[in-house]
Amino acid sequence: MPEFLQLTPVQEAIDRFLANLPTETHLSIEQIPTIQSSGRVLAEDILAPHPLPEFARSTVDGYAVQATDTHGASTALPAYLNLSGEIHIGQPAEQTLVSTYTILIHTGAMLPPGADAVVMLEDTQQVKTGEIEILHPVAVGENVIQIAEDVKEGEIVIQAGRRLRAQEIGGLLALGFTQVSVYQRPRVGIISTGDEVVPPDVIPKLAQVRDINSYTLQNIINRHGGESILRGIAGDSLETLQALVDTSHREDDLIIVTAGSSVSARDLTAQVFEALGKPGILVHGIAIKPGKPTILAVADNVPAVGLPGNPVSALVVGSLILPAILDRLYGMSTEGGSTFIEAKLTTNVASQAGRDDYHPVRVWEDENGVHAKPIYGRSNLIFTLVRANGLLVIPSDSNGYEAGTTIRVIPF
Amino acid sequence: MPEFLQLTPVQEAIDRFLANLPTETHLSIEQIPTIQSSGRVLAEDILAPHPLPEFARSTVDGYAVQATDTHGASTALPAYLNLSGEIHIGQPAEQTLVSTYTILIHTGAMLPPGADAVVMLEDTQQVKTGEIEILHPVAVGENVIQIAEDVKEGEIVIQAGRRLRAQEIGGLLALGFTQVSVYQRPRVGIISTGDEVVPPDVIPKLAQVRDINSYTLQNIINRHGGESILRGIAGDSLETLQALVDTSHREDDLIIVTAGSSVSARDLTAQVFEALGKPGILVHGIAIKPGKPTILAVADNVPAVGLPGNPVSALVVGSLILPAILDRLYGMSTEGGSTFIEAKLTTNVASQAGRDDYHPVRVWEDENGVHAKPIYGRSNLIFTLVRANGLLVIPSDSNGYEAGTTIRVIPF
Repeated sequence: MPEFLQLTPVQEAIDRFLANLPTETHLSIEQIPTIQSSGRVLAEDILAPHPLPEFARSTVDGYAVQATDTHGASTALPAYLNLSGEIHIGQPAEQTLVSTYTILIHTGAMLPPGADAVVMLEDTQQVKTGEIEILHPVAVGENVIQIAEDVKEGEIVIQAGRRLRAQEIGGLLALGFTQVSVYQRPRVGIISTGDEVVPPDVIPKLAQVRDINSYTLQNIINRHGGESILRGIAGDSLETLQALVDTSHREDDLIIVTAGSSVSARDLTAQVFEALGKPGILVHGIAIKPGKPTILAVADNVPAVGLPGNPVSALVVGSLILPAILDRLYGMSTEGGSTFIEAKLTTNVASQAGRDDYHPVRVWEDENGVHAKPIYGRSNLIFTLVRANGLLVIPSDSNGYEAGTTIRVIPF
Repeated sequence: MPEFLQLTPVQEAIDRFLANLPTETHLSIEQIPTIQSSGRVLAEDILAPHPLPEFARSTVDGYAVQATDTHGASTALPAYLNLSGEIHIGQPAEQTLVSTYTILIHTGAMLPPGADAVVMLEDTQQVKTGEIEILHPVAVGENVIQIAEDVKEGEIVIQAGRRLRAQEIGGLLALGFTQVSVYQRPRVGIISTGDEVVPPDVIPKLAQVRDINSYTLQNIINRHGGESILRGIAGDSLETLQALVDTSHREDDLIIVTAGSSVSARDLTAQVFEALGKPGILVHGIAIKPGKPTILAVADNVPAVGLPGNPVSALVVGSLILPAILDRLYGMSTEGGSTFIEAKLTTNVASQAGRDDYHPVRVWEDENGVHAKPIYGRSNLIFTLVRANGLLVIPSDSNGYEAGTTIRVIPF
């Protein structure tokens, strides 16, 4: 397929690509300590082994009562109840409460058998020893968390396929799950090409440059739950590239090739992907700047992505596409709802219609609000992105925005 | 200080707290491999040891020329240039280009000495061997990246105090920095209190609950670049709490105590913080729900935070306050510009004026747009937050929002 005869719009490219990938995960499962599971994806439904809470608890400091004993109580005509002790936090409430009696209770302590509500301390008064005045009535259940109000025994509390955050880790530990089954991280093989590319620890000779794409992409992959494997630099040799891609195809769940910068080098990637398996190349060139020369292929259920060689394009397109692929490898669908920052443009930004334009910007806040200043620089210059902390997307049907326009910036 | 006589608005509370902390960092410095430095904070200014690029490069596939040789060229009247070879990518261009000659060049290859521009392949034609027709003129510098166009030798390319992302890692490697000096992670001591609290690997007796706050807060701290140290569960004993807080004050950069749920247990935290050093407690109670019983103190330059015992409050207030404190410990100021998702409310949400109301919501996207559904549940129930993926903030001057309103949700 010749390059760029037809550029595919970004969303269409992603949709077509995902439509050719299995929706269910084939990742293996491993057991890990729950407290180390942040960002991992749950591989089994979690059923509550017991209700939460396991005992009725007071939500306030006050007096445990039978609600009927407080009916009609007011500041002018308090209800009088006999004080019979105190329930300490963390201690089982052994004494049963009977009508006309009350027990001092603290927030979080267990409600005594027989009690069905708690009157807040502020709504009571102790005038003489052993007697409490109730100044306001309470309803049954008031100021009490019931058994199983958070979670019922046997309920599925977290479903397989959920990415674990602080709250899931807390929920698992609350139920006593100190170990948890998660999917192994998808393996992502990263291959660099280009005769001019040398590893970062080598001093480049004249006309050579250091490989940085492997490492910026590794960073994106690790942050989105993948395990990146650097498979080396292929130069511009078809044989070496083919061998590296074949290995990655055999051993990894996703293959990424960052192309050499010339057209002939990019053609190598397309050639190798096309020979790898069916259905082959699905998208060759997307309507985005930077990042046009992107190739998306699937070979025998393994996704393969050819990214542009220049570091800014690789990073922008990588950030856009790789999280969705990793989610799919986990069998997850994205929930949608994009995250952005609203800011006021400091200068005009022009854009060519017919492609999505991703423009690096610097966002900052002062007493006048949030501002976004476009960072100018060619798409080959990595330090353009070092100066940026966001991307302004100018959609394909727009010619740009004027200074002063309120725009949406993707944090980057 | 008695509890909650006066609730401090959230931003005022954070500002007052930060105003009492040193603005410069006192963290130690360590050297780590650059490829492992994601999220770490740079401890030294990075100066470019050489320019980037180090040689002038072509940005297109085409022909290197002297621009003056192309002036006036057109499809009707091409300029004719003698072809004298090809420059391979990664190979130094040794041949000097002289007037009336041209050299085939690929994207990313080194511009030969004597050349000052590149004509794109599409703007040329080869009719007979050894001769190239130039169909469009180019200006000096066209289709060329000059030496030092990204970075000049000796320029400060990344300043100390910057948090390292994919692009900084790429930039560092492009300049050959395979090791980098970063600040050690701030140490955060986490102490749980409450006589009812047992570690998560213990089966709670009746009236006891498992500690989960230590672990949800650990998650927030780790994700924001801190190193959390679990210093144990203090029960409701003043002596134990005092001993744990003293140790943390001696050894850590930030002390967090998650309070027992009762007022008396919370008073313990206040008592211990007040005795710890000057200026002592700065904020006691903030105008937020959930999270009102929050204590902010500084003792001899060490910040100390008392968080509510209930897991939802601890997680909401922790997410709100801890990142700003960690940034400050690194000597960084936040750049501002909050990140949010825009969504349409599915039902009415009521709120009490006079405090910021943080309401858990579930956000999802379908063909009709992005929706947010409030999750109802008491603030003590951790699984309320498991069901949520965002927080709706209802500011203190509002009584809530109606169904159908477009609102802003903080991803959570």
